[in-house]
Amino acid sequence: MQQQHYAFIKEAIDMASLNVANSGGGPFGALVVKDGKVVGRGVNRVTTTNDPTAHAEVTAIRDACKNLSTYQLKNAVIYTSCEPCPMCLSAIYWARIKTIYYAAESKDAAEAGFDDSFFYQQILLPANKRTIISERIAVDNYNKPFSTWLESEIKKEY
Amino acid sequence: MQQQHYAFIKEAIDMASLNVANSGGGPFGALVVKDGKVVGRGVNRVTTTNDPTAHAEVTAIRDACKNLSTYQLKNAVIYTSCEPCPMCLSAIYWARIKTIYYAAESKDAAEAGFDDSFFYQQILLPANKRTIISERIAVDNYNKPFSTWLESEIKKEY
Repeated sequence: MQQQHYAFIKEAIDMASLNVANSGGGPFGALVVKDGKVVGRGVNRVTTTNDPTAHAEVTAIRDACKNLSTYQLKNAVIYTSCEPCPMCLSAIYWARIKTIYYAAESKDAAEAGFDDSFFYQQILLPANKRTIISERIAVDNYNKPFSTWLESEIKKEY
Repeated sequence: MQQQHYAFIKEAIDMASLNVANSGGGPFGALVVKDGKVVGRGVNRVTTTNDPTAHAEVTAIRDACKNLSTYQLKNAVIYTSCEPCPMCLSAIYWARIKTIYYAAESKDAAEAGFDDSFFYQQILLPANKRTIISERIAVDNYNKPFSTWLESEIKKEY
């Protein structure tokens, strides 16, 4: 088992290094593994595809879901070259992945200029204390999407 | 200005309601606006495209970045039918959006079965207290992606 962990984590690290070397993309790679098999792979494609959400874990989750034709990766695990940022951690929760295996720690990423501790701190704060302003616009039909959802006979829960 | 806010937030709400009515997709919609113009639109496409990361805010950010050929939406704002979940909030930070305007509150979403308070609580916890297990795999070359990045002459910072 430990040997398999090493093989997968090394692959994630190699993907991360190659992503920088080949395209100048962010130094992150991730694999989604289910039943001992790789079902999805991803590298950071933020600058190479103009998508600020295209972190390695997110692209690996998208790839795995596409390959398995599902939107939930129950019993899958993720191997990532570095501890996930809060966006990726939340995406891992939404995907129902059960375990995160990582190599580098957040402090290593911070030393290379990728400091997500600010984001973690911001999320912990109440909305009115964050640097991004959050303002409610009060409109009468604010609940219409939810009432439509509750009455819908074609809705698909997730 | 307030009238413009109403128009945009109503459009986000209408998109959210129509997404349920037309496809049974999640009851969420969002618009990215820059210089008073809509530059990106998104609805929740989790179940309709098998992508657990395809929340309305994320799809709107992806759309805006594609339309503007950029990975940073500085000075843009987002109008969303509901307060963002932690994944979307983090994506909004990564995209450098400056203001979030929303209609429904998280408690309204929770009443319709979309309770993200658990995710917020989980992110606040230290990694070893979360329900998703997080384990470091110690390998020698864990820092290789970052050293490759720091030495790279083709890297594009983000």
